[in-house]
Amino acid sequence: MTLPGLDPTLERVLDLAGVLVFALSGAQLAAQKRFDIVGIAALAIVTALGGGITRDVLLGDTPPAAFRDQTYLIVPLIATVLVLGGHRALERISRPVLVFDALGLALFCVVGTAKALDHGLGAVPAALLGVITAVGGGVIRDTLARDVPAIFRPDSTLYAIPAALGATAVVVLWPQDALDAVTAAIVVAAVFGIRVLALRFRWRAPTARS
Amino acid sequence: MTLPGLDPTLERVLDLAGVLVFALSGAQLAAQKRFDIVGIAALAIVTALGGGITRDVLLGDTPPAAFRDQTYLIVPLIATVLVLGGHRALERISRPVLVFDALGLALFCVVGTAKALDHGLGAVPAALLGVITAVGGGVIRDTLARDVPAIFRPDSTLYAIPAALGATAVVVLWPQDALDAVTAAIVVAAVFGIRVLALRFRWRAPTARS
Amino acid sequence: MTLPGLDPTLERVLDLAGVLVFALSGAQLAAQKRFDIVGIAALAIVTALGGGITRDVLLGDTPPAAFRDQTYLIVPLIATVLVLGGHRALERISRPVLVFDALGLALFCVVGTAKALDHGLGAVPAALLGVITAVGGGVIRDTLARDVPAIFRPDSTLYAIPAALGATAVVVLWPQDALDAVTAAIVVAAVFGIRVLALRFRWRAPTARS
Repeated sequence: MTLPGLDPTLERVLDLAGVLVFALSGAQLAAQKRFDIVGIAALAIVTALGGGITRDVLLGDTPPAAFRDQTYLIVPLIATVLVLGGHRALERISRPVLVFDALGLALFCVVGTAKALDHGLGAVPAALLGVITAVGGGVIRDTLARDVPAIFRPDSTLYAIPAALGATAVVVLWPQDALDAVTAAIVVAAVFGIRVLALRFRWRAPTARS
Repeated sequence: MTLPGLDPTLERVLDLAGVLVFALSGAQLAAQKRFDIVGIAALAIVTALGGGITRDVLLGDTPPAAFRDQTYLIVPLIATVLVLGGHRALERISRPVLVFDALGLALFCVVGTAKALDHGLGAVPAALLGVITAVGGGVIRDTLARDVPAIFRPDSTLYAIPAALGATAVVVLWPQDALDAVTAAIVVAAVFGIRVLALRFRWRAPTARS
Repeated sequence: MTLPGLDPTLERVLDLAGVLVFALSGAQLAAQKRFDIVGIAALAIVTALGGGITRDVLLGDTPPAAFRDQTYLIVPLIATVLVLGGHRALERISRPVLVFDALGLALFCVVGTAKALDHGLGAVPAALLGVITAVGGGVIRDTLARDVPAIFRPDSTLYAIPAALGATAVVVLWPQDALDAVTAAIVVAAVFGIRVLALRFRWRAPTARS
């Protein structure tokens, strides 16, 4: 899936940067849990690629994109090697990593929603698949690591909500043929901005009233 | 999938009622675990639709039915709003909800098995897909909420067993062209009845001998 | 998927032996957790067939092979009956079962990788699908039983690593048309041997450096 009007090389660089950062978050969690190399590689792969693979399986677009271009699998393997070499050192750069993670979140929800619309899905399922593309890998990561998914926890800062807002913007723009390089970049920037502000000001999502 | 001879409007009403009740059970569990709105919506969606989506992915019928008709996704979002508004109030109607849940169980196992047979599967895999349609969403719900799946626990009342009996009845009726509106209704009523009796008299499934 | 030059009857016997042993490991874990018959049957099925089903869904080869030949589902149901009848007695034969499990691991990683290559996948995704075929069922088993996947734990003996080595051997042999009955048997024997040695000498995989 390429976004309309976006330079393919730039999109690929951003895409792989998102995959790397997601992979690092999976590998780091595995190292913190003292998993061995198998657990580190497994969490790196599912965190980086699980969301997009789930989207593609649900769309019936198999084998998933992550299996057709080998680079997508090599990047999590690089993350595995980095974390094996020194996961404590990587923890010191956890703040910049969170910023790149926000970029991955923003990019993946826009690309995922656009791909689902391109496959003919309606607005609601397309937006859901966009959110799944962005956050699904993290949910699988946490479930395999036997944690409650981070995005469900009341003390987590907004993560799926900005992705849902971005996906909603895409499904609004799409039927008017208004999703182009400029509007897509604005949506990605807005999702990225909301996520970074949520991190900075500890914005949280509402819970159920008792 | 429409059941033979069943009024499509009635089937749709029953189907969506089942989806709503399953969604409420997911959203309620999320609220009890103090998940935020993201967790509540996620568990509502996977509980309501996870079984049918799993069945459709395994059959290769993608995108799943739940993504082709937007109503299926809107219903769990309504459940999310209801639970956000007051999940304690909903707990007071948990007994009637269990009765509707039994109806969803009965309907989904029959519809799921019939759809699998219609896709050419053999009796055993078709019955398994029928059971997965009925109970799969609850298993995903419990796993994401970090509980042992309720239907595996020795203190749970019969749930998958009535679904398996209903699925077995469908695979017996099907090759004789004997699955029509009347026999399907009888099977649904029988599964529903066994489940309600199991709730009432606390029937439990056997465990392994030590 | 049949391996080149391998007698189909022998391959089928080995394949079903692997399915039975994997099913027993799932059913035994369920019994140890005091799950009821539903949990025992569910873990028997997902452990035995989950890896191959995941591979087939990712390849778009649906319904999965495990649903096209009913024997694949009947074998885990037999394992369920055996464990219900006396899981303590089965524990006494846990050592020979581990040897058969190593054979299943070896066979499934070779067959799974070859099938993925046959579907046109590149070397890295094909090897990953081979490993998933061999170890994916166990990961699902442990996740449903609310355990950390055994293959991620630092105190586990090598399991996914021999499968990865076997898968790598297959992707090296394949493009040279060198995967035949003899080389496939050598790879299976090597994976089996490494796994048995890992069990005997408690070989473990590396973890991340602190």
